[in-house]
Amino acid sequence: MGTSSSEIKLLGTAASPFVNRVQFVLSLKSIEYEYIDENLACKSELLLKSNPVYQKVPVLIHENKPPLPESLIIIEYLDEIYPDVHPILPSDPLIRADNRFWANYIDTKVFPLYEELRKTPEKEGKEAIKKQIMEVSQLLEEAFLKFSDGKPYFGGDKIGYLDVVLGCFLGWTKFVEKHNEFMIFDEVKTPKLLEWTKRIWSHEALKDAIPGSETLMNFYMMLMKYKPPRAA
Amino acid sequence: MGTSSSEIKLLGTAASPFVNRVQFVLSLKSIEYEYIDENLACKSELLLKSNPVYQKVPVLIHENKPPLPESLIIIEYLDEIYPDVHPILPSDPLIRADNRFWANYIDTKVFPLYEELRKTPEKEGKEAIKKQIMEVSQLLEEAFLKFSDGKPYFGGDKIGYLDVVLGCFLGWTKFVEKHNEFMIFDEVKTPKLLEWTKRIWSHEALKDAIPGSETLMNFYMMLMKYKPPRAA
Repeated sequence: MGTSSSEIKLLGTAASPFVNRVQFVLSLKSIEYEYIDENLACKSELLLKSNPVYQKVPVLIHENKPPLPESLIIIEYLDEIYPDVHPILPSDPLIRADNRFWANYIDTKVFPLYEELRKTPEKEGKEAIKKQIMEVSQLLEEAFLKFSDGKPYFGGDKIGYLDVVLGCFLGWTKFVEKHNEFMIFDEVKTPKLLEWTKRIWSHEALKDAIPGSETLMNFYMMLMKYKPPRAA
Repeated sequence: MGTSSSEIKLLGTAASPFVNRVQFVLSLKSIEYEYIDENLACKSELLLKSNPVYQKVPVLIHENKPPLPESLIIIEYLDEIYPDVHPILPSDPLIRADNRFWANYIDTKVFPLYEELRKTPEKEGKEAIKKQIMEVSQLLEEAFLKFSDGKPYFGGDKIGYLDVVLGCFLGWTKFVEKHNEFMIFDEVKTPKLLEWTKRIWSHEALKDAIPGSETLMNFYMMLMKYKPPRAA
């Protein structure tokens, strides 16, 4: 079932939820690949050459084709070239479009709020961001109710696009909850999403993709110290 | 060739390049639709209900299905449900993925710089943003050379996804050039893109979609005065 490892290379770093998404999909689709670990504090020539615009991971390199950056774009690409094993995007065009809408929402609203919380030093500022995060969680609960329609996942009976997209933030979600002493998903505001987090957290393919809390802590401390180099 | 006008409704406002994109694709695909003009200073119940998350145009309503916001997502949807007349996205999965990458780049880098220029009052700040805009234009020139490969459009011989995505910014591009006294596309830095702007500017379907400079000026003045209401 697996594909030869020479065909697919993934440039990544263990604690990136964006990299983890791609790993999650590769695992769900039983695609073998070569993982190339990047040190973001000292980026490789291969990364700079493969993603000159953003210089970020993940980057997927498929055979001798031009390298492909951006997690959501990589996932759609993998789903298009390996459609038979575990399809990720829904087949209905409108539901697929709605999945893309919420994936964009998660990337442009949810994770940036975690980042903002990390970068805000004052208690008052942090409290305002926590409030926003909890409002966003309630919107996500509504989206989950709509997509899952009584079934276990956003994708219905099987893990789908939004399960991958949001699921790979769960390591960071737990981390942010612990270090800021509040609950992003709880039994009152987001009862169904809370069940979903437990369900997807115990999924084998996600366990493979998401790093342990120690890796996240090391990465977090590195981020706190890291100053990005000026763009060329 | 056209589709019955009752099937598709588009909520829009004339000077929005994001709305214009959808109109451009509807025109290229000869899809009839009902256009519903939104006053952004006093949004309709229909818009608030159709796009509760962002409360923005465009929104596409297809038959009795749930409304669909976000121009890039709408374009992909239209291309999926009407694949036969004038396909917009390339058929090769990697080139399609690369098109999505550059569309995201245009939306997250190019247009926000125009907005930043508008919102920055000081001359020094404006000069720094102009420099960034010209650097971005050079990257777009390189992307154009890659995708067009000697042919007239990003899409090759026919107008494709990136022609639509970037082409609908041309009204704003000309407007920004005129009011800030500099050239975003010129013969020295971006000779091929300059030719492309003239070529696509004279395309019938784009003329239909892009408003005249007076409409843009009115919209621009409205934006300068407009304060968004607090989100609910």
